[in-house]
Amino acid sequence: MTDHVFKLSEIVGTSHEGSDAAIRAALKRAQSTIRNVKWYEVVSQRGFVEDDGTVQHQVVIKVGFALDD
Amino acid sequence: MTDHVFKLSEIVGTSHEGSDAAIRAALKRAQSTIRNVKWYEVVSQRGFVEDDGTVQHQVVIKVGFALDD
Amino acid sequence: MTDHVFKLSEIVGTSHEGSDAAIRAALKRAQSTIRNVKWYEVVSQRGFVEDDGTVQHQVVIKVGFALDD
Amino acid sequence: MTDHVFKLSEIVGTSHEGSDAAIRAALKRAQSTIRNVKWYEVVSQRGFVEDDGTVQHQVVIKVGFALDD
Amino acid sequence: MTDHVFKLSEIVGTSHEGSDAAIRAALKRAQSTIRNVKWYEVVSQRGFVEDDGTVQHQVVIKVGFALDD
Amino acid sequence: MTDHVFKLSEIVGTSHEGSDAAIRAALKRAQSTIRNVKWYEVVSQRGFVEDDGTVQHQVVIKVGFALDD
Amino acid sequence: MTDHVFKLSEIVGTSHEGSDAAIRAALKRAQSTIRNVKWYEVVSQRGFVEDDGTVQHQVVIKVGFALDD
Amino acid sequence: MTDHVFKLSEIVGTSHEGSDAAIRAALKRAQSTIRNVKWYEVVSQRGFVEDDGTVQHQVVIKVGFALDD
Amino acid sequence: MTDHVFKLSEIVGTSHEGSDAAIRAALKRAQSTIRNVKWYEVVSQRGFVEDDGTVQHQVVIKVGFALDD
Amino acid sequence: MTDHVFKLSEIVGTSHEGSDAAIRAALKRAQSTIRNVKWYEVVSQRGFVEDDGTVQHQVVIKVGFALDD
Amino acid sequence: MTDHVFKLSEIVGTSHEGSDAAIRAALKRAQSTIRNVKWYEVVSQRGFVEDDGTVQHQVVIKVGFALDD
Amino acid sequence: MTDHVFKLSEIVGTSHEGSDAAIRAALKRAQSTIRNVKWYEVVSQRGFVEDDGTVQHQVVIKVGFALDD
Repeated sequence: MTDHVFKLSEIVGTSHEGSDAAIRAALKRAQSTIRNVKWYEVVSQRGFVEDDGTVQHQVVIKVGFALDD
Repeated sequence: MTDHVFKLSEIVGTSHEGSDAAIRAALKRAQSTIRNVKWYEVVSQRGFVEDDGTVQHQVVIKVGFALDD
Repeated sequence: MTDHVFKLSEIVGTSHEGSDAAIRAALKRAQSTIRNVKWYEVVSQRGFVEDDGTVQHQVVIKVGFALDD
Repeated sequence: MTDHVFKLSEIVGTSHEGSDAAIRAALKRAQSTIRNVKWYEVVSQRGFVEDDGTVQHQVVIKVGFALDD
Repeated sequence: MTDHVFKLSEIVGTSHEGSDAAIRAALKRAQSTIRNVKWYEVVSQRGFVEDDGTVQHQVVIKVGFALDD
Repeated sequence: MTDHVFKLSEIVGTSHEGSDAAIRAALKRAQSTIRNVKWYEVVSQRGFVEDDGTVQHQVVIKVGFALDD
Repeated sequence: MTDHVFKLSEIVGTSHEGSDAAIRAALKRAQSTIRNVKWYEVVSQRGFVEDDGTVQHQVVIKVGFALDD
Repeated sequence: MTDHVFKLSEIVGTSHEGSDAAIRAALKRAQSTIRNVKWYEVVSQRGFVEDDGTVQHQVVIKVGFALDD
Repeated sequence: MTDHVFKLSEIVGTSHEGSDAAIRAALKRAQSTIRNVKWYEVVSQRGFVEDDGTVQHQVVIKVGFALDD
Repeated sequence: MTDHVFKLSEIVGTSHEGSDAAIRAALKRAQSTIRNVKWYEVVSQRGFVEDDGTVQHQVVIKVGFALDD
Repeated sequence: MTDHVFKLSEIVGTSHEGSDAAIRAALKRAQSTIRNVKWYEVVSQRGFVEDDGTVQHQVVIKVGFALDD
Repeated sequence: MTDHVFKLSEIVGTSHEGSDAAIRAALKRAQSTIRNVKWYEVVSQRGFVEDDGTVQHQVVIKVGFALDD
């Protein structure tokens, strides 16, 4: 393995479906602007309950990506 | 935003289906007795394995709700 | 000291002024419904930024009070 | 196992005897007002030293109990 | 309840489907070699993003099982 | 609520006045370059004592903001 | 001191008597199968309340032992 | 920068005014007996509620100072 | 309550009897050299297993005491 | 000291030599694109073992730098 | 990537040379008995000072390895 | 083992060479004033980047030593 330097960005994905969908939303958004996304780590999970009782799930993740040389 | 005071209650939802279903079960129970449930935060996740090998998932969450004035 | 049993309730005070004011708001609300409030512990601090840029500070505290015998 | 919802209450038992006695005091008080106490988890341990040098031990525990359906 | 001694093993389940599936994979593997698996606790969640953009989810769990007498 | 993706940036505000002023300094700087700042979370508090004994307070916060679609 | 390599095993001792007895039960079991047990560290303490109100205390410990060369 | 060795002392400042005043009280006391106080880090915040409802805020800080050569 | 400043010292009590005895040993030693010991907080618990299988329990505590004015 | 605002970036340095070299690699990369790098804090350390048994050490650090006014 | 299940073992490497050497000692020992060692994570670092003042450094790591199918 | 009482002091070693050298500097300083230094535990690692780009590494350790009887 070549010795790269990586950067971690902390982002929050949201979804009305569930926690896995919130992670996918966060990763999809990250991949649209960052090349070389390599891994994620879940930091915390929470959600907001709207006035009609439906729930918006939020998952905070750190996304790791290789910095270009 | 008006300056409300909120309370956090720690509850444990359980489900044989998975962790998202356990969160939903906990929130549904909370909303049946507490008005003004506004958000939740996941504290921890675990589960019990029954004698026949099936798994009961448990998610500990904190539920935040506005105290009436 | 007599051997009492105490209970901890987690509440969130909010204020547009600052974090000390948010703690005072939470304690004032607690004292209006709970007798024998004895101490508090800060759990976390955060805040919401409103659309006009003003900030609502939130302090999560645990309030300890003596259970009546 | 039926899928119940549980609640966690944080209480503080005190005893001049020691930490196990403080846990028993907290559980005894909890069982006098809550039905269905199922488990406890130790959160932290501390104590106060009185002017004559004797010690009041305090154990903070979370008590889990099944919510009635 | 008889006073057993339990052991905790830390394992990592992986799945391209999601976090619940990763937990199931870890538990299934544990049950194939360990008798008396009784519970699990989630330690952390993360995932690797492959070159084609698909994601391998990883859930680190501790598995508790009764030691034979 | 629409399902947005948010980003968290960790910044450190400083002030000779106190911790609330340090948070305000950090938020003001963040709002000058980032649109859509929505919330902050306090990570840690510290300070440096200068040679003449005056104190520079530092508050580390995470600032959450909505990513444009 | 010779430079050995040690291993840590996480085990759970249980006892109806108290936490010290639960630690002793865990260590006794460990020593019956592992040679060279050198130290333990308490990870967490909890307990289950049985239907008749008696309590089974559980102490999770890590046991350190020297690996044979 | 010369390579000094520093020491950290954990002290608790108290004030009826607020948390910043409690930090100032702790630092003032530290500076009266320790030369070369260089920085502080907040460890935790809490307070005691007196019988008349007034509050004594307490901030636990670590104070760093250079050891004389 | 007068606004005192307190100091926290971290000490380790040891005992072949159990954890409560280790806490008592640490407090007794602290009280022999420090006036005004007011409280303790348990930081961690561990123990060493001697060659003959007996166990020396160790409890790390922080001891709080009032600084003289 | 002037009251600046700082930013923290989380990066991962890698090296086949060891952990200090991994920190140096991360700092060198940071300094090539960020002016005013002032400090770092180690978040975690880990490493990957390659198929031939050699090890790539990874150190996750937070890098603090002054934001230009 | 194929969906494997991994196991984490917690081991302690020791060395009179330094922390990197202690990690290498732990990994070398792990690789001598476990096939498929893939990564390590540093849990904590400490050391013992011997009577002649020399120091034995200890690094606690978790070693991850693929379980055979 | 005789049942001693130990004390933990938190100190910060600094070095331009690396983290192991910073630990050695802290231990050397501790041993010059404290008899009976027995062990250390690493609390955190950080460093300051000087204006010319060189780095001063800092390691915060707790030093344990036996209190004289």
